Amino acid sequence: MAKSRFEYVRTYEQDGILLPNTYVVIRLDGRGFHRFSARYNFRKPNDKRALCLMNATAKQVMGQIPDVAGAYGQSDEYSFVLRRECRLFDRREAKLVSTFASTFTAHYQFLWPQYFPDTRLDGSMLPSFDARAVLYPSLREVRDYFSWRQADCHINNLYNTAFWTLVLGGGLSEHDAEQALMGTNSGDKNELLFSRFGINYNNEEAMFRKGTMLVRDVCSADPSSPESTDSRDVPDQHEKSKRQVEREEKARRKAEIVEMHVDIIGDEFWKNSARWIS
Amino acid sequence: MAKSRFEYVRTYEQDGILLPNTYVVIRLDGRGFHRFSARYNFRKPNDKRALCLMNATAKQVMGQIPDVAGAYGQSDEYSFVLRRECRLFDRREAKLVSTFASTFTAHYQFLWPQYFPDTRLDGSMLPSFDARAVLYPSLREVRDYFSWRQADCHINNLYNTAFWTLVLGGGLSEHDAEQALMGTNSGDKNELLFSRFGINYNNEEAMFRKGTMLVRDVCSADPSSPESTDSRDVPDQHEKSKRQVEREEKARRKAEIVEMHVDIIGDEFWKNSARWIS
Amino acid sequence: MAKSRFEYVRTYEQDGILLPNTYVVIRLDGRGFHRFSARYNFRKPNDKRALCLMNATAKQVMGQIPDVAGAYGQSDEYSFVLRRECRLFDRREAKLVSTFASTFTAHYQFLWPQYFPDTRLDGSMLPSFDARAVLYPSLREVRDYFSWRQADCHINNLYNTAFWTLVLGGGLSEHDAEQALMGTNSGDKNELLFSRFGINYNNEEAMFRKGTMLVRDVCSADPSSPESTDSRDVPDQHEKSKRQVEREEKARRKAEIVEMHVDIIGDEFWKNSARWIS
Amino acid sequence: MAKSRFEYVRTYEQDGILLPNTYVVIRLDGRGFHRFSARYNFRKPNDKRALCLMNATAKQVMGQIPDVAGAYGQSDEYSFVLRRECRLFDRREAKLVSTFASTFTAHYQFLWPQYFPDTRLDGSMLPSFDARAVLYPSLREVRDYFSWRQADCHINNLYNTAFWTLVLGGGLSEHDAEQALMGTNSGDKNELLFSRFGINYNNEEAMFRKGTMLVRDVCSADPSSPESTDSRDVPDQHEKSKRQVEREEKARRKAEIVEMHVDIIGDEFWKNSARWIS
Repeated sequence: MAKSRFEYVRTYEQDGILLPNTYVVIRLDGRGFHRFSARYNFRKPNDKRALCLMNATAKQVMGQIPDVAGAYGQSDEYSFVLRRECRLFDRREAKLVSTFASTFTAHYQFLWPQYFPDTRLDGSMLPSFDARAVLYPSLREVRDYFSWRQADCHINNLYNTAFWTLVLGGGLSEHDAEQALMGTNSGDKNELLFSRFGINYNNEEAMFRKGTMLVRDVCSADPSSPESTDSRDVPDQHEKSKRQVEREEKARRKAEIVEMHVDIIGDEFWKNSARWIS
Repeated sequence: MAKSRFEYVRTYEQDGILLPNTYVVIRLDGRGFHRFSARYNFRKPNDKRALCLMNATAKQVMGQIPDVAGAYGQSDEYSFVLRRECRLFDRREAKLVSTFASTFTAHYQFLWPQYFPDTRLDGSMLPSFDARAVLYPSLREVRDYFSWRQADCHINNLYNTAFWTLVLGGGLSEHDAEQALMGTNSGDKNELLFSRFGINYNNEEAMFRKGTMLVRDVCSADPSSPESTDSRDVPDQHEKSKRQVEREEKARRKAEIVEMHVDIIGDEFWKNSARWIS
Repeated sequence: MAKSRFEYVRTYEQDGILLPNTYVVIRLDGRGFHRFSARYNFRKPNDKRALCLMNATAKQVMGQIPDVAGAYGQSDEYSFVLRRECRLFDRREAKLVSTFASTFTAHYQFLWPQYFPDTRLDGSMLPSFDARAVLYPSLREVRDYFSWRQADCHINNLYNTAFWTLVLGGGLSEHDAEQALMGTNSGDKNELLFSRFGINYNNEEAMFRKGTMLVRDVCSADPSSPESTDSRDVPDQHEKSKRQVEREEKARRKAEIVEMHVDIIGDEFWKNSARWIS
Repeated sequence: MAKSRFEYVRTYEQDGILLPNTYVVIRLDGRGFHRFSARYNFRKPNDKRALCLMNATAKQVMGQIPDVAGAYGQSDEYSFVLRRECRLFDRREAKLVSTFASTFTAHYQFLWPQYFPDTRLDGSMLPSFDARAVLYPSLREVRDYFSWRQADCHINNLYNTAFWTLVLGGGLSEHDAEQALMGTNSGDKNELLFSRFGINYNNEEAMFRKGTMLVRDVCSADPSSPESTDSRDVPDQHEKSKRQVEREEKARRKAEIVEMHVDIIGDEFWKNSARWIS
């Protein structure tokens, strides 16, 4: 069998190696979730079951891939940040994004019956996700990335809350609700919710307003882990002993995954970030 | 909400656009299927249920993505070739590989109970797939790519058939079977199967020996489609009228997907390749 | 000396390999040639010395790099097309573009005194060029690429000829000449040149109107070279014998470089393209 | 003129944008300088004229491109590091490497007569350079990069000094000198030079042993520039006012370029690195 005659086609594969020692953020987005959420009757403006399913799925992914330091989810998207030293799959981009997309999809479908016990998935509309990888050379940018997503969550959720309150509570058509909100700012929407419907937006569920942050609390598994170090002082991976690398890997595997629905834009959240990302 | 302050992080995203007018092959590989197949008791050397599940899954993917012209599967891998004119997702590599991996995963899990009715999937070991994209500028290389995978199928399947026949039929330990086959060529393995076990390898199921080729028979849906043209004469996408592009797109959606277990290395199979790839 | 301690920085280098078996076009552009041409008093609208210097430089580059099949130059730019089989520098993009830019720059400066014997270069304004590489999977696109550049040459040269005729022959200010040409099409400019200045644009020098095409006439060096084959039938590089590859390489080295100032948009020029590109 | 019909070929260009906020090191290497140095009779083991020509050329490049923070040269290579905030050419890789290669080549040839007044360049062997770009996300890696090049300089120069001393001073053939040095370590070579030829290697010229470091002393041009800040505290480019960015740009243009032949592996050199790189 002339195997070797065809093997040259392998030389057309391109490596696609992500720059070493750089944070990798992998963001997954639900494909066609506008139609998907309509098909499966997601509640408006937020379906708690759907968000909890996303969070449970993300935890499974983090459980299986210890290099994920933290993750942030809102709506039908989830962003995972990998430690800057991560060498998973030799940092091959295609392998990373496809594996995250596949693993997330697998757990989402598997967990579905727990969160939607009365709704069976239909083979003609299964949940699927695409993924992309973005590199950030410093922790500052990683923080700004997560802030960007939470700001996006806030803007969308405030709009959606006002919109669906007008529709479901105020009896407006979707078209009229859209018109009513056109040109309004955040203050206007808060005021509208409060004055017309007695809703204090800040009392809405934190998970809806803030999204969900998952962090791997490495210190919970390894009390000797340095809390106060910052990324500048941490020795590079190649300077660590093999034993130390293995000890840290084990600590990550055992570490608790903590779920939070808090502000991640201000400084407070990032004060202890060395506990989970470094 | 200071959204704009964080938006700069988007500028770190890289396009990753695949070269236009070039065939894209997307190959999916089962992740950890050695352990996976052991966990779910796949039959050796081939589990027909598992292969048929792969094929059924691949057909679902082809059904949803009309730009797939054909696909070849064997063992736990599947390769999809996209038309060279394909503009799906603006040819963004990450979006393509993650979507294929996710969609394949979703259908594989969904179809699982049809093929393994007595075996429930276990949340700690769900099937998942990684994916990569490779570009080929000419049909010659696409053909050689598929030949490469079928040659690989042949070599592995002949080995596995001999190995498991020695173990299951001959009572050898796995270690002894490995030793017995060390250094043997194809002829030796054929001879061993025939003389010691009365097995004519060529009578084994074609799907095991040849793998599975799926092609979208565009002509079945559009009899006016040119059969005899070759890639050189076909006008470029940008020279086609919009109406023609839409008509072809519709034909692809309606086209039958044909499953074959035949030799794809020789010329015969490629004689009518203009029917499905151009 | 702890050399190995630092060697890890090499792992940050990325390959940047250009897709095999694909035409590579490398386009060089003069850096800041608007100021450069003013500084060295280039004649308007065309300085024949400057164009001939570009052409002579390009021939030197082609002479040194046999993988260049042909080149097209106009104004301060030159495009080189490499054979699709070219393996120069393992097809590393950075090495290719930097080497072309450097080699072109070296010869341009070296040849300068032959074309501008009365004008010495000034160290504060030396000629330099940037370069980029673009991949084209088929000959059709290579042809369209060259057509694109010649169409660009035509449009710019017709405009510049009309503009400078108005300024130098008609006594208009540059501002007034610009106004006079605003909104005119090709026919208007031809008419203006003819009716007001008695200039038949088609009688202008072909090098100005058509730019310069350089082709390596391989057949001149190897009469046995196939003239009638097209790219589809040519065996792939990996199917050629080593001796044949070497013979072809030698023929390219010895082949005459032919300079032409002709239409390269129509079919005529491409009829014999197998003589120089395949 | 059907310009638009061909314009589609532009869509095949790929961006090749280097990751923002990351140090870019551009390394130039002389092409075929083994033959080049033989052709122009460079002195062995070091030709001071040739090294000074490299340094003078690098200074011209730094003078023209203010984003270069520093550079290190040895033998026929030069490495330039760009500020992490650098946005030159929108960080397009091909444009960066080709421009550096071209500009360096232009000045090298132009300055040649100053350093080799008695040796005219020959058109059949002009000096040229290739270039590559490597990204480093942190200052630690930039430092290690320069250390790697200086360690390389040390090892090669000690070897070459011993080799040519054996040949030129000891009368050995090149073959015998090579044999004599095989398997020797640094101590052996030092000992050999001292005991047999009375040469204390540490008294050799620092430029030969240490190579040449060029830094842009920004503080010399802007005394208010922060000396003590480190990269972590410096606000990101996008947080700086436009006026501040322009002031810094101006300071870089005016800043003195300082040449040093010192150890750049130890901490001492890097203590004041905020003066030139941040």
